[in-house]
Amino acid sequence: MGNPSKYKIAIVGSGRLARQLANAFFSAGIVVSQIYARNSGMAQRIANQIGAQAVNDIHAIKTDTTCCVLAVSDDAIAAVSEALPSIEGLVVHTSGFRGFQEIHSKHAHRGVFYPLQTFTHGRDADFHSIPFFVEAEHDADQSFLLELGNKLSDKVMVSRLFERQRLHLAAVFVSNFTNALYVIGKDLLEAENLDFSLLHPLILETASKAIALNPHEGQTGPARRNDAGTIREHVKMLYKNQEAAEVYKLFTSIIQNKYKNQKDE
Amino acid sequence: MGNPSKYKIAIVGSGRLARQLANAFFSAGIVVSQIYARNSGMAQRIANQIGAQAVNDIHAIKTDTTCCVLAVSDDAIAAVSEALPSIEGLVVHTSGFRGFQEIHSKHAHRGVFYPLQTFTHGRDADFHSIPFFVEAEHDADQSFLLELGNKLSDKVMVSRLFERQRLHLAAVFVSNFTNALYVIGKDLLEAENLDFSLLHPLILETASKAIALNPHEGQTGPARRNDAGTIREHVKMLYKNQEAAEVYKLFTSIIQNKYKNQKDE
Repeated sequence: MGNPSKYKIAIVGSGRLARQLANAFFSAGIVVSQIYARNSGMAQRIANQIGAQAVNDIHAIKTDTTCCVLAVSDDAIAAVSEALPSIEGLVVHTSGFRGFQEIHSKHAHRGVFYPLQTFTHGRDADFHSIPFFVEAEHDADQSFLLELGNKLSDKVMVSRLFERQRLHLAAVFVSNFTNALYVIGKDLLEAENLDFSLLHPLILETASKAIALNPHEGQTGPARRNDAGTIREHVKMLYKNQEAAEVYKLFTSIIQNKYKNQKDE
Repeated sequence: MGNPSKYKIAIVGSGRLARQLANAFFSAGIVVSQIYARNSGMAQRIANQIGAQAVNDIHAIKTDTTCCVLAVSDDAIAAVSEALPSIEGLVVHTSGFRGFQEIHSKHAHRGVFYPLQTFTHGRDADFHSIPFFVEAEHDADQSFLLELGNKLSDKVMVSRLFERQRLHLAAVFVSNFTNALYVIGKDLLEAENLDFSLLHPLILETASKAIALNPHEGQTGPARRNDAGTIREHVKMLYKNQEAAEVYKLFTSIIQNKYKNQKDE
């Protein structure tokens, strides 16, 4: 695949992932030569940080780009890839949910470069620990994506679409929905002028123990103990908060159902 | 309150909390003199670790104990405290959900000593970071509990029952229900022979960013973006897993509802 310092990467997009990927490539010594985004101010800001060229016309992306990374929303992949000039190198998207076929077929080398992580403004992701799932239409391109990924991360794997979709779905549960539970917890405390920070150690320990042990074994709480009295009181406390009450009842029934034949200590 | 090295603590219980509290007192240089549990083998094992006396008759708990800590289930507090001989010092329970009144009134000094954390077999909690919420019938006892707590933790507060109940309820959401989401994530991956460890970085980052930032701002995902196509496909993928599908639909509607008037980037 040649010398990584000679790669010419183009990034399309200026969202959270585009920005962090640009910085991660830069830190890994890989040249990001061009950045295009509809929001040209954003593209310019990212480009300035890493010495890239910001382009405000998608046709200005160079056809001899080694790898053009589309860090755009799933629904934009088709249109954006069609608007690009035909790229001689690879064109990849970063979605966990779409196949490389989503990229317009005018590009001869299509692929997927999917990092499984949640990216947030103002918070630098540690790319080394992020699993990357790659796939390409052609084997040589797949090898290239593995190499490229390995510059950023310690965990890069070839995967099929159905696997990435499964990972993406599981990620929605353990990240997006978990965060929604944190929001409920915060709102419940703040309604009584209690500070969310009181829950911080519990949140971290719950995550850490699921990783160190096994979440099946780490299940605790009133539902796990089948403590009907506490469950009833909890539901009463939620009478003003219908959404939280629904969440409470659903999880309680799921947990009770799962452990009904096992005694907690 | 006198010299902590002269305290005589008794612990009733041999579950996860009893065990970890016993060790935490020991590490803090506070003498745990007696441990009682129905399961006398368990009590003996804990006692051996910290040089305490295991007793298999609750009447053998000494009446001149400085503080008798009931680390038992909520429903056992009343009966266990009644079975104890009348203690001259304090009798406290460790429940987040019951008042000190739950302790039998034959004890003149009743209180609550509630650590907000999830305790797991085979995993030592870091007591310094655990918030303790204390309350006692008498002011002097409350001061004693603050002092005692401060030997174990950097964060000890006097609190009212309604505050502890609120914390306890919020803890169920951010810990017990979060863990149930981890279980769903794990099961979804393992059904396709994918390893749960692929989600570890995401789980940790989701917890860390809720703490570093604000979970309201950290909400991401298809529901947050109102990405109807992906949501529809996700629900289809869950057709064999009714419980997970219900969780998916409920959270999606809660998140969509909350952010319907705000655009994600």
